[in-house]
Amino acid sequence: MKNIALLGATGSIGEQTLEVIRQHKDKFSVFALAFGTNAGKAIPMIREFEPEAVVTADEETRQKVFEATTHKNIMVGSEGMVAVAKDPGADVFVNAVMGSIGLPATLEAIRSRKRIAIANKETLVTAGHLVMAESRKYDTPLLPVDSEHSAIFQALNGERNEDVRRLIITASGGSFRDKTREELQGVNVKDALNHPNWNMGAKITVDSASMMNKGLEVIEAHWLFNMPYDKIHVLLHRESVIHSLVEFQDRSVMAQLGSPDMKVPIQYALSYPERIPLSGSESLELEDLAELHFQKMDMERFRCLKFAFQAGRQGGSMPAVLNAANEQAVAMFLNEQISFLDIEAFVERALTEHNSVSEPSLSDIIEIDKETRKRVERYVK
Amino acid sequence: MKNIALLGATGSIGEQTLEVIRQHKDKFSVFALAFGTNAGKAIPMIREFEPEAVVTADEETRQKVFEATTHKNIMVGSEGMVAVAKDPGADVFVNAVMGSIGLPATLEAIRSRKRIAIANKETLVTAGHLVMAESRKYDTPLLPVDSEHSAIFQALNGERNEDVRRLIITASGGSFRDKTREELQGVNVKDALNHPNWNMGAKITVDSASMMNKGLEVIEAHWLFNMPYDKIHVLLHRESVIHSLVEFQDRSVMAQLGSPDMKVPIQYALSYPERIPLSGSESLELEDLAELHFQKMDMERFRCLKFAFQAGRQGGSMPAVLNAANEQAVAMFLNEQISFLDIEAFVERALTEHNSVSEPSLSDIIEIDKETRKRVERYVK
Repeated sequence: MKNIALLGATGSIGEQTLEVIRQHKDKFSVFALAFGTNAGKAIPMIREFEPEAVVTADEETRQKVFEATTHKNIMVGSEGMVAVAKDPGADVFVNAVMGSIGLPATLEAIRSRKRIAIANKETLVTAGHLVMAESRKYDTPLLPVDSEHSAIFQALNGERNEDVRRLIITASGGSFRDKTREELQGVNVKDALNHPNWNMGAKITVDSASMMNKGLEVIEAHWLFNMPYDKIHVLLHRESVIHSLVEFQDRSVMAQLGSPDMKVPIQYALSYPERIPLSGSESLELEDLAELHFQKMDMERFRCLKFAFQAGRQGGSMPAVLNAANEQAVAMFLNEQISFLDIEAFVERALTEHNSVSEPSLSDIIEIDKETRKRVERYVK
Repeated sequence: MKNIALLGATGSIGEQTLEVIRQHKDKFSVFALAFGTNAGKAIPMIREFEPEAVVTADEETRQKVFEATTHKNIMVGSEGMVAVAKDPGADVFVNAVMGSIGLPATLEAIRSRKRIAIANKETLVTAGHLVMAESRKYDTPLLPVDSEHSAIFQALNGERNEDVRRLIITASGGSFRDKTREELQGVNVKDALNHPNWNMGAKITVDSASMMNKGLEVIEAHWLFNMPYDKIHVLLHRESVIHSLVEFQDRSVMAQLGSPDMKVPIQYALSYPERIPLSGSESLELEDLAELHFQKMDMERFRCLKFAFQAGRQGGSMPAVLNAANEQAVAMFLNEQISFLDIEAFVERALTEHNSVSEPSLSDIIEIDKETRKRVERYVK
């Protein structure tokens, strides 16, 4: 039995993680559930999974949960998450929160030598150097939950890192893949949220349309797989059927494929190195699909991807700025304060204006994150 | 340094194996070369690789080699191959001969616990039960050289056999993939030898056109990967870029891809579990290919594949009959004695007329092979 601490229970990945656990009550149990303020969604989860510990974002939500469940052990905020991360009762630590709030807890879980399943981009994008240093020091591997990184992780199974020639991360192209840059000027929020393949949250769907999502994945892949940026390649693949590939030095290419279903990589991170059945998920039938398409990635069409490669290569605090500027800009776009193309313009400006700090500490990163968001807010005319 | 005994040195796989060895003289050396009667091709190989032992098909060829090289240790026939298989000087035993002549030597090499690289279909098709029993008994794994089986072997790397849902073997469709059964009536030898993707010997190219090659591969996969026939699926994939796939019980699919180059799986069988560079082989650039196509396999269009599944499921001596009847029929087709569609008709008739022997011994198999060839010869009107 694996006891799971799930951070970000009410989000899309959190809910799907619980669906996987629900299918395998003989293998997995919920040790802790952490969520933000959505008590309405969390309370039935707490009743169903009866975790030992609950963490809420604030005191008000804590009170709501206490009243509805009379749960004894409800903690609050980052401190609550850190306590859960340290607790010997948890075997697996799933970080599926939004933003960098889960970072201190993730570092603590690594130090406690738990299995870490990472579904949170900020962890590696902003603090990859800190997280991977702890991962090596405590010999605690990170298992990716993102479909692309899970594909690469699976393709590397049984292989030696030094035999890798390049990682090939696939990108569907997002909602606007068939639009020219001129056509992008007229797009609105509703258009951006209409993703062709995956059903995801609003922020990540906008990031897919701008290709920033792929840029963040490139930075994550750099850290997760200890791979220089020159060995990371992005390939446009409309169908999202090949989730990513690894080319080895003998020119052999290993790939992981499947129907678009996040429960597959989530479950793999929990069940690894075993695979277990997953009901409700469908077999990939290539004969029914008939065709798969591939296209060169155009870095001028998708400038956010170019910025991400640049920020990643520059290193230091640049990826934290990239991420914070993008989050702020996307929030303003979703608020209809700025246009879609303003997102990349604001990110570019924020990167240009930042003086990079090498080897930033956790508090440096948090500080730079705040500053960047404030600065980007002021970019609106 | 791995010392290699290569059976079938002058064939297509043999030559490419030597090309791989030539690139990695620091890692591989040739311990023995066995070939048939093509002394003209073999003599320069012997001069270049200076093997400890040489095996020829007959005394006449032996004499030619002796005169041209004054090589001290030249043996003849199956006994010569068996002697090489037993010799502690060889670490890796590559069976790339045509037909079942290498079978006793392969069994001996398994008993001598050498690494076995199998590029010979008959070994597993006709005697899979014997070979795999020895492989289990002596804990000597068989490494496949065929691109499809190598792909499956690579996809299974680090995985558990019980997690496999199905093997998906891809088939290009061969020279006649776009022809209807009506159109197949008029095809000739030259048409059949014009394979769209792979440059191979005549017999295997005809087998690709009839889909018998894929049928033999299905039977091989059954033995190599200990997989029931219900878990082996064949998929038409024109480009031969995905060399084969494995679906697991979590619906995740692992695949191996690459440009069509037999040196990749040959080298992998030699270098496994490491991968080493392979110069002259090109990276797969999916963006340049732009599209991959998939189609359902039609067992009525490709009846040889249906016969292979049937013979495999019936087991016993049926696969040996399938193989012998096909070899005889293909030889007669290449001799322009029979039509292309006669191949499948003759195979079907030979299977129908055969009374299956369960658990046939090596001598049973050799006897049945001879009988079947004679019988099929008499089918010509």
